[in-house]
Amino acid sequence: MPNVSLAELSPSQRYRLITGSVMPRPIALITTLNANGTVNAAPYSAFNYMSEDPPLLAVGVERYGDESHRPGEIKDTLKNITERGEFVVNMVDAPMLERMVACGSDYPADISEVDAVGFTTEPSGGVTVPRLCEAPVALECRRFHLLEYSQLRTIVLGEIVSIHFRPGLLNEETLRVNVDKYFPFGRLGGPNYAATIERVRLPVPTYSKTRGTPRS
Amino acid sequence: MPNVSLAELSPSQRYRLITGSVMPRPIALITTLNANGTVNAAPYSAFNYMSEDPPLLAVGVERYGDESHRPGEIKDTLKNITERGEFVVNMVDAPMLERMVACGSDYPADISEVDAVGFTTEPSGGVTVPRLCEAPVALECRRFHLLEYSQLRTIVLGEIVSIHFRPGLLNEETLRVNVDKYFPFGRLGGPNYAATIERVRLPVPTYSKTRGTPRS
Repeated sequence: MPNVSLAELSPSQRYRLITGSVMPRPIALITTLNANGTVNAAPYSAFNYMSEDPPLLAVGVERYGDESHRPGEIKDTLKNITERGEFVVNMVDAPMLERMVACGSDYPADISEVDAVGFTTEPSGGVTVPRLCEAPVALECRRFHLLEYSQLRTIVLGEIVSIHFRPGLLNEETLRVNVDKYFPFGRLGGPNYAATIERVRLPVPTYSKTRGTPRS
Repeated sequence: MPNVSLAELSPSQRYRLITGSVMPRPIALITTLNANGTVNAAPYSAFNYMSEDPPLLAVGVERYGDESHRPGEIKDTLKNITERGEFVVNMVDAPMLERMVACGSDYPADISEVDAVGFTTEPSGGVTVPRLCEAPVALECRRFHLLEYSQLRTIVLGEIVSIHFRPGLLNEETLRVNVDKYFPFGRLGGPNYAATIERVRLPVPTYSKTRGTPRS
């Protein structure tokens, strides 16, 4: 029964072990705007919500590209979030999947991944950074705090200002998302992704009401 | 096309919108140890890894139970992590699913969810808190930092000390997780969960090598 201590491993060995262990990870296709008005789009899966009050999400964003790609330069997403203080998390479903992956390619800063892969943008409601028209859900965020524990990644905490839903996804009376019409992909280890079509519903049993016999 | 501003909503309305939007979320069934030696187990899905160097994960942990359950008292998981400084993130696959959900029930502090739902524990390799024998993967963590932005939740940053794998899950020569044998569940909106059995493999195309024609 293997137990692997991380202390002796290299960062890339740790990366493979951790991303092979913590899954399925939600996918944030993050749009940002640079000083020239170019929209950048990059996928991240070190991502989740963290609290509802304040409404926060967290993303572990790489600081630098790989060695072949503008070494020493801060990556566009982090640079743009730092400078503009706003970003949009676009969720990704099946029709977007291949284009989302292509956004992870090593485009130069002056080429918009959005145009290159064939996405389109529209103005957001709550921030100045555009969202992707194709996204079923888009979380419009302001930079809340940047945590710099690492040379490799910055943890970006974003405050969710507003959420945009594709028509039909939100029940506007109850303010509940229609889970039966929403099928975002998750990220697995390596270049692998999981659909969320095989589902099960399991409410939490109540101990105090059943006096020691949890319902399941 | 509905765009919902979060500013005017209550925390529970925000919770439902955010957890209905950000998915599939990886599930951390967190074991902790209280001062009396009772093992606590509680499921969280405001959870992901954040960086590989240092190897960090983040969990948004509720500070208090609901109103019917020991109001005003800090919940066991947060209390135990604060006092002992260690915890284990147990990943959850199909045979564990119903018992994981039952661990979310409102058991008193002196009852171990582990015993109540029928899990078993064994000593961890890197920390003093036991892990679940049933877990395919267990991430053994030390408290790295607690972020207190919220009255409702504390963001726990944990440093991953070591990772334990069920036999057959880790290729010990390459230190890669065998993704084809590992099927953890993800959390969706409401009491809904997704299996990760429907998968697709999509390597990232290389822009710089193909001079502007990303492979897909």
